[in-house]
Amino acid sequence: MTPTIDSDRLWQSIMDMAEIGPTPEGGSCRLALTSEDTAARALFLRWCKPLGLHHDQDAIGNMFLRRAGSDTTAPAIAFGSHLDTVPTGGRFDGIAGVLAGLEVLRALHDAGIATRAPLELVNWMNEEGSRFSPAMMGSRVAAGELPLARALAITDDAGISVAQALADSGQGGALTPAPRDWSAWLELHIEQGPVMEATGAEIGIVVGTMHARYFQITVTGEPSHVGPTEMNRRHDSLAAAAEVIMEVERAGLAAEPGGRASTSWIENTPNARGNVPHITRLHFDVRHNSQEAAVAMDASLRQSMSGIAERRGVRIDVNPYAAFGPIAFDRRLGALLRQKAAARQLTTRDMIAAAGHDSVFMAPLVPSAMLFVPSVAGITHNPKEYSTKEQVARGAQVLLDAVLELAGI
Amino acid sequence: MTPTIDSDRLWQSIMDMAEIGPTPEGGSCRLALTSEDTAARALFLRWCKPLGLHHDQDAIGNMFLRRAGSDTTAPAIAFGSHLDTVPTGGRFDGIAGVLAGLEVLRALHDAGIATRAPLELVNWMNEEGSRFSPAMMGSRVAAGELPLARALAITDDAGISVAQALADSGQGGALTPAPRDWSAWLELHIEQGPVMEATGAEIGIVVGTMHARYFQITVTGEPSHVGPTEMNRRHDSLAAAAEVIMEVERAGLAAEPGGRASTSWIENTPNARGNVPHITRLHFDVRHNSQEAAVAMDASLRQSMSGIAERRGVRIDVNPYAAFGPIAFDRRLGALLRQKAAARQLTTRDMIAAAGHDSVFMAPLVPSAMLFVPSVAGITHNPKEYSTKEQVARGAQVLLDAVLELAGI
Repeated sequence: MTPTIDSDRLWQSIMDMAEIGPTPEGGSCRLALTSEDTAARALFLRWCKPLGLHHDQDAIGNMFLRRAGSDTTAPAIAFGSHLDTVPTGGRFDGIAGVLAGLEVLRALHDAGIATRAPLELVNWMNEEGSRFSPAMMGSRVAAGELPLARALAITDDAGISVAQALADSGQGGALTPAPRDWSAWLELHIEQGPVMEATGAEIGIVVGTMHARYFQITVTGEPSHVGPTEMNRRHDSLAAAAEVIMEVERAGLAAEPGGRASTSWIENTPNARGNVPHITRLHFDVRHNSQEAAVAMDASLRQSMSGIAERRGVRIDVNPYAAFGPIAFDRRLGALLRQKAAARQLTTRDMIAAAGHDSVFMAPLVPSAMLFVPSVAGITHNPKEYSTKEQVARGAQVLLDAVLELAGI
Repeated sequence: MTPTIDSDRLWQSIMDMAEIGPTPEGGSCRLALTSEDTAARALFLRWCKPLGLHHDQDAIGNMFLRRAGSDTTAPAIAFGSHLDTVPTGGRFDGIAGVLAGLEVLRALHDAGIATRAPLELVNWMNEEGSRFSPAMMGSRVAAGELPLARALAITDDAGISVAQALADSGQGGALTPAPRDWSAWLELHIEQGPVMEATGAEIGIVVGTMHARYFQITVTGEPSHVGPTEMNRRHDSLAAAAEVIMEVERAGLAAEPGGRASTSWIENTPNARGNVPHITRLHFDVRHNSQEAAVAMDASLRQSMSGIAERRGVRIDVNPYAAFGPIAFDRRLGALLRQKAAARQLTTRDMIAAAGHDSVFMAPLVPSAMLFVPSVAGITHNPKEYSTKEQVARGAQVLLDAVLELAGI
């Protein structure tokens, strides 16, 4: 008989974790490497302690908790997610994946089951990227997609570097970030969308990701005084940026349901009452199930921005600083998850991940897969983010069943 | 014979003042009560020293430099402007008015002329309002339009209060801010617009001001994740704010040439890459020669904002926090300036001031007038802000001639 997830224990762990960095509306705020994130990591380690795991940590702050296997030469079966949140975070995004992984290890421990292959539970550093950009920083560095030295030099809005934050929080470990000896990587995550709820799917089998393209733009106009400067003599960078924001939104609306486009960040100079702004910066991204469609959105937005710049007599510098995906997850692992869900009489649905996930950086290195559990009303990055105790437990059970089959007994 | 302005000396003072808080592009940055502003005030006092003036300073930092008159009971003839600048300031806005006043006193001093009425040269504190809002703070408090205690409690973006900044800079004086014993107030200022240059006018007789209405709005949406959250499930406060910015600009364009409307300030929350913004604040203002037209613009923008809020499922709270004008300046003083300009063979043009000025707060208290000198290409609040040596000197001469007639010999 396979061991069983303790849904109450898993739920209680999620609720206990949410006590760290609570927000007034019931959500969580634990930006990477803040004291809240550091406290969450410490609590996680305390929970791991009774399980006899070996704890490794790398120089970018990724945490690896290994349960030995009976075959000491076998590569590990790895799983996990992240404990950091966005400023308006909920209780589930990332956390559900780490704590479901913890519950897998607890269930095996309670049942006294030793697996053939080792198991490794992971908490990736700074998945959200809210404090230090880019997102998925820990997995990105581990995958060799971002050099460690460059990551360490990145600063937050207060000018604190990742290196400094790692030192201050004591989270910089001894290991050199690198791909690990894994034969499979699995990540449980909340859907963050409404599709599973709407279609009644209990387990989402994530077959791949959207393609995403990231842009930073700088609009440069001319400073002037809002009183005496007639409208048609202005080169207002904020008004031009507002037009870009509207164009980005229009492009996203036109690309529904497969695509979206979003401006999330703005910086305006001098941002002083009475002054026509002359430097405005934006961050936006474009995502689509089809890479070709995303590239077309990109091209169309650049054309719009050229037109805006020319018509308004401003300069728009476009820095397309990153792109990722589409990633296809491992089909064999996807089939295994589908089969394990079916064996538990759970309905499944194939899904495309629209958000970035650490699994995106694992997929090129090791057979990887993700499974989703439903998000109530599809709300995420919001204190109202919610999945039920049963929804999370079902996902954890499928994860446990798949891990056991992969690791062998 | 009337004394004559020394155009070289006046020009040199303006250039010397610009050495304090220089910006890379050749402009000046001296935000109110910063070390740069304090240094500018100290230099101004050093220049006043040889003229034997009595220096008074009030508790909000306004500086009054009085030259005694032969009639000790006569009210003073006052003039001046401000030495503080916006972050992207030029060398002339405000400064030209204070230093033209200084040159008036220097010329009288050199000529050994005593006037019947006393003369008073003024440097108003924080005219620009870039660091501490609202603008025209010193004159506003002196006029009783803003209680001193409330002004002292206002903070800058770093949380430093006006009271603290006055204490730190040593600029809080012993006088209680109050209307002074003046019989006339005159302010020379640069036009900050292109009309005088375009029409060949050498002296602008400012007959009044536009009506201005100021708004702070808060757009409240819902936090979510830009990846999985479909466009039509979002309540994006930044996109809604961008639409407001476009509407404000449209209202301004439609109101040309008598009106304008401008968004100058934005604050976005959480302003984190990957998060749909959920709180965005804007500052905008609406100005028009006709108060009726400005009120209509206000009403139309509120209607637009209601529509945006309803359509997007966001809340827009509108705080119409200030309004001023239209002010009509004193007709007798305007006629005097017109006559003095004509006597110097200078062409004049009646003007409406579109920017706020300290004179707006003097006008209800004492007969007040402003004169403009041309701004090259109408550029202002910009390092390229410029008036020629001759343009400034002509204005200073008209000021001197008018002051002499008002004060008597």
